[in-house]
Amino acid sequence: MLWGGRFTGGLDPLMVRYNESINFDRVLYKQDILGSIAFARANAKAGIISGQEFDQIEKGLLQVQKEWETDAFVIVPGVDEDIHTANERRLGEIIGKHVAGKLHTGRSRNEQVVCDMRMWLRDELRTIERHLVHLLTVVAARAEREMDLIMPGYTHLQRAQPIRWSHWLLSYGLVFAADLQRLREVIRRVNRNPLGCGALAGNPFGIDREMMRRELEFDDLLWNSMGGVADRDFVTETLQWGAMLMQHVSRWAEDLIIYSTAEFGFVRLDDAYSTGSSLMPQKKNPDSLELLRGKSGRAFGQMAGFMMTQKGLASTYNKDLQESVEPMLDHVKTVADSIQIANGVLSTLKTNGDRMRAALDPFMLATDVADYLVRKGVPFRETHHISGRCVAKSEESGIPMNELSFEQLKAIDDRFDEDVAQVFDYDASVERRSAKGGTSKSSVVEQIKVLRDMLKEA
Amino acid sequence: MLWGGRFTGGLDPLMVRYNESINFDRVLYKQDILGSIAFARANAKAGIISGQEFDQIEKGLLQVQKEWETDAFVIVPGVDEDIHTANERRLGEIIGKHVAGKLHTGRSRNEQVVCDMRMWLRDELRTIERHLVHLLTVVAARAEREMDLIMPGYTHLQRAQPIRWSHWLLSYGLVFAADLQRLREVIRRVNRNPLGCGALAGNPFGIDREMMRRELEFDDLLWNSMGGVADRDFVTETLQWGAMLMQHVSRWAEDLIIYSTAEFGFVRLDDAYSTGSSLMPQKKNPDSLELLRGKSGRAFGQMAGFMMTQKGLASTYNKDLQESVEPMLDHVKTVADSIQIANGVLSTLKTNGDRMRAALDPFMLATDVADYLVRKGVPFRETHHISGRCVAKSEESGIPMNELSFEQLKAIDDRFDEDVAQVFDYDASVERRSAKGGTSKSSVVEQIKVLRDMLKEA
Amino acid sequence: MLWGGRFTGGLDPLMVRYNESINFDRVLYKQDILGSIAFARANAKAGIISGQEFDQIEKGLLQVQKEWETDAFVIVPGVDEDIHTANERRLGEIIGKHVAGKLHTGRSRNEQVVCDMRMWLRDELRTIERHLVHLLTVVAARAEREMDLIMPGYTHLQRAQPIRWSHWLLSYGLVFAADLQRLREVIRRVNRNPLGCGALAGNPFGIDREMMRRELEFDDLLWNSMGGVADRDFVTETLQWGAMLMQHVSRWAEDLIIYSTAEFGFVRLDDAYSTGSSLMPQKKNPDSLELLRGKSGRAFGQMAGFMMTQKGLASTYNKDLQESVEPMLDHVKTVADSIQIANGVLSTLKTNGDRMRAALDPFMLATDVADYLVRKGVPFRETHHISGRCVAKSEESGIPMNELSFEQLKAIDDRFDEDVAQVFDYDASVERRSAKGGTSKSSVVEQIKVLRDMLKEA
Amino acid sequence: MLWGGRFTGGLDPLMVRYNESINFDRVLYKQDILGSIAFARANAKAGIISGQEFDQIEKGLLQVQKEWETDAFVIVPGVDEDIHTANERRLGEIIGKHVAGKLHTGRSRNEQVVCDMRMWLRDELRTIERHLVHLLTVVAARAEREMDLIMPGYTHLQRAQPIRWSHWLLSYGLVFAADLQRLREVIRRVNRNPLGCGALAGNPFGIDREMMRRELEFDDLLWNSMGGVADRDFVTETLQWGAMLMQHVSRWAEDLIIYSTAEFGFVRLDDAYSTGSSLMPQKKNPDSLELLRGKSGRAFGQMAGFMMTQKGLASTYNKDLQESVEPMLDHVKTVADSIQIANGVLSTLKTNGDRMRAALDPFMLATDVADYLVRKGVPFRETHHISGRCVAKSEESGIPMNELSFEQLKAIDDRFDEDVAQVFDYDASVERRSAKGGTSKSSVVEQIKVLRDMLKEA
Repeated sequence: MLWGGRFTGGLDPLMVRYNESINFDRVLYKQDILGSIAFARANAKAGIISGQEFDQIEKGLLQVQKEWETDAFVIVPGVDEDIHTANERRLGEIIGKHVAGKLHTGRSRNEQVVCDMRMWLRDELRTIERHLVHLLTVVAARAEREMDLIMPGYTHLQRAQPIRWSHWLLSYGLVFAADLQRLREVIRRVNRNPLGCGALAGNPFGIDREMMRRELEFDDLLWNSMGGVADRDFVTETLQWGAMLMQHVSRWAEDLIIYSTAEFGFVRLDDAYSTGSSLMPQKKNPDSLELLRGKSGRAFGQMAGFMMTQKGLASTYNKDLQESVEPMLDHVKTVADSIQIANGVLSTLKTNGDRMRAALDPFMLATDVADYLVRKGVPFRETHHISGRCVAKSEESGIPMNELSFEQLKAIDDRFDEDVAQVFDYDASVERRSAKGGTSKSSVVEQIKVLRDMLKEA
Repeated sequence: MLWGGRFTGGLDPLMVRYNESINFDRVLYKQDILGSIAFARANAKAGIISGQEFDQIEKGLLQVQKEWETDAFVIVPGVDEDIHTANERRLGEIIGKHVAGKLHTGRSRNEQVVCDMRMWLRDELRTIERHLVHLLTVVAARAEREMDLIMPGYTHLQRAQPIRWSHWLLSYGLVFAADLQRLREVIRRVNRNPLGCGALAGNPFGIDREMMRRELEFDDLLWNSMGGVADRDFVTETLQWGAMLMQHVSRWAEDLIIYSTAEFGFVRLDDAYSTGSSLMPQKKNPDSLELLRGKSGRAFGQMAGFMMTQKGLASTYNKDLQESVEPMLDHVKTVADSIQIANGVLSTLKTNGDRMRAALDPFMLATDVADYLVRKGVPFRETHHISGRCVAKSEESGIPMNELSFEQLKAIDDRFDEDVAQVFDYDASVERRSAKGGTSKSSVVEQIKVLRDMLKEA
Repeated sequence: MLWGGRFTGGLDPLMVRYNESINFDRVLYKQDILGSIAFARANAKAGIISGQEFDQIEKGLLQVQKEWETDAFVIVPGVDEDIHTANERRLGEIIGKHVAGKLHTGRSRNEQVVCDMRMWLRDELRTIERHLVHLLTVVAARAEREMDLIMPGYTHLQRAQPIRWSHWLLSYGLVFAADLQRLREVIRRVNRNPLGCGALAGNPFGIDREMMRRELEFDDLLWNSMGGVADRDFVTETLQWGAMLMQHVSRWAEDLIIYSTAEFGFVRLDDAYSTGSSLMPQKKNPDSLELLRGKSGRAFGQMAGFMMTQKGLASTYNKDLQESVEPMLDHVKTVADSIQIANGVLSTLKTNGDRMRAALDPFMLATDVADYLVRKGVPFRETHHISGRCVAKSEESGIPMNELSFEQLKAIDDRFDEDVAQVFDYDASVERRSAKGGTSKSSVVEQIKVLRDMLKEA
Repeated sequence: MLWGGRFTGGLDPLMVRYNESINFDRVLYKQDILGSIAFARANAKAGIISGQEFDQIEKGLLQVQKEWETDAFVIVPGVDEDIHTANERRLGEIIGKHVAGKLHTGRSRNEQVVCDMRMWLRDELRTIERHLVHLLTVVAARAEREMDLIMPGYTHLQRAQPIRWSHWLLSYGLVFAADLQRLREVIRRVNRNPLGCGALAGNPFGIDREMMRRELEFDDLLWNSMGGVADRDFVTETLQWGAMLMQHVSRWAEDLIIYSTAEFGFVRLDDAYSTGSSLMPQKKNPDSLELLRGKSGRAFGQMAGFMMTQKGLASTYNKDLQESVEPMLDHVKTVADSIQIANGVLSTLKTNGDRMRAALDPFMLATDVADYLVRKGVPFRETHHISGRCVAKSEESGIPMNELSFEQLKAIDDRFDEDVAQVFDYDASVERRSAKGGTSKSSVVEQIKVLRDMLKEA
């Protein structure tokens, strides 16, 4: 040790810990074992190992799997640096090193790790798919049952036009349904077989990759061995997908946090999703929604971080790629939990139709006033201006816009007729928005149908 | 002005500039005009304007379009805050305010801007699709023609196993082909019709959204009016897509930068894609590749930035969303340019097969030595160890591994036979990797076919 | 052209555009000229050029500067690839190539570009420093003048405890003051001299770097020539700083957007910082605040993008670093504009003390009720519980908490005395928070002093 | 449960887990206890609790601390949701609920958590400071001892000019020294006292915050109670700092990875920091460097993610801020480990001076050839061109540039004299770069001194 640095001689114990992955990749034990069995079976078919050797390997590996499942597996610190090493080490103890030593023939950890990850992720994403379908089922059910609640629609967080609460529900429902569609596309790219790629150049024993694909239920092969071992786009895609989903969740949560303030009061969270304050006895805080919103940052950070890790990396496997595992594991958990929490919040949320309706104000019908004149042939630009003057009149006089006298309106523009009074009806305003996608009842009912159709697997 | 701040009275000129978008959204002039014509036609069908009024509007708008195309359009500073305002202002000058004032009936800028953006982006992404197909055509052609170049394959940037140069080319080719597949998915979601959504609550005049969809060649409707005006996921998806593509470009460029160093010397960039130094007369720098690599940061930043902008935003339109336009415009340009530059670099790149072959060293066949013993029935774990001892013997003795005498090998393990000499053949090593996806000729030829099949539009 | 790619022969015009920087680095013309004069003067001192040659160079460069300032400079497309080339080309036309050709002696564009950037950025950051001081001056002035406005303080966006509006103002004021402190630290690191570093290895003519430092008003030297030309941390630091500042702005804007809703109604934006709707006549939208919030994404994206660009880059100059210039330019503009807009918004904002006070509700004094019992010796955990029961009683009975009868309170806990009535006084509650940093008048006055002290340059 | 969602009645167990922080914030146990003791002492001084009560609390808390230290503390699942709750619960068991129930008087978890975090982080950052100083001590020592190694300096990864290995070492050394300077600035802002801020409005019992500041060794107070509880800039700053440091590490690692390829061969990693391949017996991979480079992504992601979490958050405490803890904990560990690993790598790295020198080639002296003519009065632009022609001559003829005959040179330009031969000396070239910051010995020695001065605490 020439330079007086931290560590002298032999192995740096910090380096051992910095390098090893067993403390997180152990969750992949089952996939690792199933992949090894498939690989051994294909090696047997290729004549690299005998049928009897395969049987021993399979039996041994299934025993290792059982040990994991029963918490009987004992990791050997400093030896079992990753799940692959651990499983093979244990297999050797069970069936003897001679046969166990044939398991890894023609195989590299490069292909093995990515096989484990792809199988694990495929299964987890299918679980997430189910959570998402469940959430959307609740959205559709509430939208159907609470069709008659009318509330202010906001733009710029300023009151804009009356809408149905169901319309709000569906505005997010259709966003999450697009997430579902994207998820199904991602799963197809995740679920591809890397086994048989070797370290980078391919398998030299003519292994049957298609046979392994079928056994492990992959949809397709990875078609280039260099890419097969180094490609982590299946992780990046998942992280991009989840980061976008969580962004949607963050906006949905933001709306509900605002709607549950004392000042808005449109909804009230169930106690199961709220908490109190250690200091202030009266507090009931929407912690669930805040965590959902906050965790959108975590999900984004995992995506951004792993994209950084890959930037400018030379091709094929580099150890940098080990950094793909932890973000994948935590991301999947974060997203799965968050969808379920969102579902819990939504399922138990209480709406307050009275507060919603009380928040409507006549100014929200100013567009309808303009439209009224449009129907009488006045150009919209002009009607917009006239309606604006009615708003101003109301603000100056303190008389609500819907209580301005016919004379007052007439004084502003003499094309107003007495039927203008009919404009000031929130329900009628809502029903006028009957073009596709609008907030009228028929349009909302159609949206519910569209949403439900999107839930079906293609 | 009570507090001694920067600005007193009337309009803050900085606010005008901070708010206006005309200096960048003017590129959308054509889409804005086509969208307005479709909207007016649908309003005519709905009876909101007359057929004659529609004809005037259409004629006027086509004249405005011509003015843009001939650089004759004069933006009025401080008035034309965005492209929508500018076009309608000019239309009014041409056909009179009375009829022009009917154009915007039942329409909101919220739906209008997003209609313009979606049409523009759809067209640009289709152009990018063509660039990508073109690049991949070159990849396939080179891979076919330069099949016989053998080079070191690296993992961890350390020499690993011999591979074909074509195998390297295809490792990226298949990655870019996956980008192409994803792009086609993105385009389908971009290309949806928001017109008829109004400000947020829908259209009150029963406008025929389906008719507008057909005229503007959208694939589908946006099904919820609140979502229709506020959803910028089509931008986010594009940015995520482009950021990932550029990450692939960054890795491809990194490989080529390393391969074009004096020390590696496998490739030489064409002068068209290199530059010199203002100080050092001998320099020839791979600026094109460095810019490609560097711009992956720009593309990522646009994605990360716009995701940040949307986080936790309350639903429907908020002015924050104006921040979607500039990243979209620059991102599309960056990606389109970069694919073309990459194509130019690849098309003109000179390979140096001699330097490639000279960089092969016998240690790269250590796996083949182990495999040789595997074929004699020795368990792989043992053969790996034996081959490792051969490597050590070679390093200690300074004798290249392929020149170790048969006796020296026999001394390490007596299962070596004289046929071991045949192992030390780089071409044979490459050809042994003949499982699907491997670096043997037949496998590489199959990959070229797979790649070409992926270029076809589904 | 062997592979059928996009471009054949000679120079790729797209590559020329992809590579050149003149369209954005031209803003650095003045710094480039001042740096060149300093460099030439130092070369004259070193005897590399004569005094007469220096005089010619200086005079010529000043003329070039004048041409830029009067918009008389004509960029030659395809030739003037960057500002350095453009200035030297023009100098040669003015004073002849023989002497102009001596300007670049011993100098590299690598050191030149970074010298230009550092000088420009230093000056811009000092301007931003002044904007920030100005904003904080307004914060302090409003906090002083509006001391008596009491409003609800929120946690989790739920009403928590009464606070002074000035306390809210200062909560952000002190955050921005920390930004100011950090900015001053950043400027010191930006303002260092790279001239004399050469391409990477240093200057071979014994140039006096200290003399150039003084002339260009740098605070220090960059002490390693390889680092000197490649280090863009001064940009990264600026981007990190600005991204954090903009995040503060985003939170400040969020508060004000919520406070300016119809439902809260605490503040009203001046018309100069609001806009209307093209469809809805009644709308007045806080566009300024939304843009401020949205642009926090842009600022973040610039930081994230440029950090991505630098990741894993080999040392010294690589062309990737050209990607530092555009984010720097736009970031500085975004931040400078945003601080001024924030100042404009704040300076003209109208507060509505009545709405603030009306939003106070007795539950916000629940902590004070608990504290009342604490003063009587009851353990806080118990008082928290007792006060919670009072809240529940009020909610069940519909009687405001401050109107519960003494008997009702006594029934909950018999340690309540009649003086409990005094607890229900918002102003007294505020004044009780008199520890340092609290919301009492004396504490707020002290904070104003602390803030003003932070504005002074160290 | 109305809508058929996931969860019915009472508490959602997933929500309990989603909300609780005990599994990660337990590492703050000691800070939590010290903060509580300081708070209780100040409450005693304020007369809120008696001296005797304080003694009981202190004694009890110290016992709780001992239980943590001896792994005797038993967390009660579902009850101990965070470290604050756990400690207070246990205290109550030890000293009785009556007195323990007085601990939290006038205090909020909002101030408590941030006090714990700031104390913890301050201490950890000081440890990181020591690691960084240690690393830089090794840099300085190697730079001093290996002064005579000459290697190619690269720009654009192309050979540029000869430099000292020590010059390369110091180019990073000075970058890390700037990180050290920034770290010291960050620590000062981290180390500020939030205790006494209450939930948001301040402390109502006139608590002596200055006294707590001294006891807990904070440098200053947080001066606004709303900011005091909500400000997580101390985390963001730390994450920005660490993300930038790790970016420096990523570039340093990239250089060393390239320098340790077979093709470059300048350095060789110690076995302690390398690993082999499961498939390829000959492989020795620089895993340590790759992990360092890869973890720069992780560190960046934590910063990016937490900035996302905070964007647009309404002021004061929101539960989103709980997302600050985990990134802080992992970031600090990642950075601390990485600096130590980098130190280990550097301390044990073997340099290969022969390979370095063998990689020098005469073209790297082309600038020196140009400079030679400059010294004879030829304008640099001309000499650059002449030297370029010499390079071309050498390339065409295959004669190394330093072996071109005097006649050949003279034919290119007749101002060449016979003394031109002296130019072709790598050591002399290096020594000519003797301006400050250059690669000559004297300049490098001066840099070592500058670096060592920066290690001293201001």
